[in-house]
Amino acid sequence: MTLPRDYGGQTCALSRSMEIVGERWTLLIVRDAFYGVRRFGEFAAHLSVPRAVLTDRLATLTGAGVLERRPDTGRREVYVLTDKGLALWPAVRALSEWGDLFYPSAGGPRRVHLHAADDAPVGDDGRCSGCGAEVPVGDLVVAPGPGLAPAGPDADPVTAALGRPHRLLTPLLPRHSPREVVER
Amino acid sequence: MTLPRDYGGQTCALSRSMEIVGERWTLLIVRDAFYGVRRFGEFAAHLSVPRAVLTDRLATLTGAGVLERRPDTGRREVYVLTDKGLALWPAVRALSEWGDLFYPSAGGPRRVHLHAADDAPVGDDGRCSGCGAEVPVGDLVVAPGPGLAPAGPDADPVTAALGRPHRLLTPLLPRHSPREVVER
Repeated sequence: MTLPRDYGGQTCALSRSMEIVGERWTLLIVRDAFYGVRRFGEFAAHLSVPRAVLTDRLATLTGAGVLERRPDTGRREVYVLTDKGLALWPAVRALSEWGDLFYPSAGGPRRVHLHAADDAPVGDDGRCSGCGAEVPVGDLVVAPGPGLAPAGPDADPVTAALGRPHRLLTPLLPRHSPREVVER
Repeated sequence: MTLPRDYGGQTCALSRSMEIVGERWTLLIVRDAFYGVRRFGEFAAHLSVPRAVLTDRLATLTGAGVLERRPDTGRREVYVLTDKGLALWPAVRALSEWGDLFYPSAGGPRRVHLHAADDAPVGDDGRCSGCGAEVPVGDLVVAPGPGLAPAGPDADPVTAALGRPHRLLTPLLPRHSPREVVER
């Protein structure tokens, strides 16, 4: 079911957004793409999303121009955020902050964002607490926070890799992860 | 289907948020609540949402503490944002801005936000272009933008009322709207 297209001008902007990213899982896929997750099998293993649902959501996101397919090794493809997808970062950040605020982990935030230039924490306003600069998403490093439970020995490759600081938008996993057992 | 609760620490914040606001219609209901929509019939008429779905979403939002029920006239109740609900404004704003940017109306933005204190436009960063202040949501006035199509004669009461500037969080409609024909 899609939202009405002739939906009352004042509500169109949000309803159009929700047509694209309002399906369950979709924003989690986009968030993973910001983290550098790129392959079908990586999304599937990390999000524990049914593969048919993941296929549907990736088709929606590529069809809407939020993600684009690029050739990987062999027959494989990777999914990479477009400029339109990158523009979703404020929404992903705002919803993540709301979740952290109202559904906190005992130890504190599960993830913190650092400014790649000086390793200083970046606040909810997107500014570096060190140099004061407004930090573009590509200059953010996502690092484990005090509330993050250590990844278990059977953690999927994405969860394991995110146990270390990682610069957003850079590929999270090597081209052939030994743990990547669910490649399409 | 809810997202896994033991979902990998780094993804919990967003996944918890999406458990609450990730269902279709939910953020549109929250957005309407920011506009001052309060009654079941108002949400139903404005969003053209099936009443059973609206009942389910309002139960989710009140159960999660995003909205609270307050007595209205007679047997009626109104739904009002809690502090937890008010904290969703940055997410609602970010998703609305993304929709305006990538699914624009011909004439420009459908809605603009003004600072109630000086009527100056408020930018995407939430700051008043006049006085420079960071404007709390309760001091925002939502006003028709150049891209807003005029409400037709058969527009629902909410659409009609939003054809005029309106201060967020204040009740949009009088207690007994003559147009409110779908009250529960």
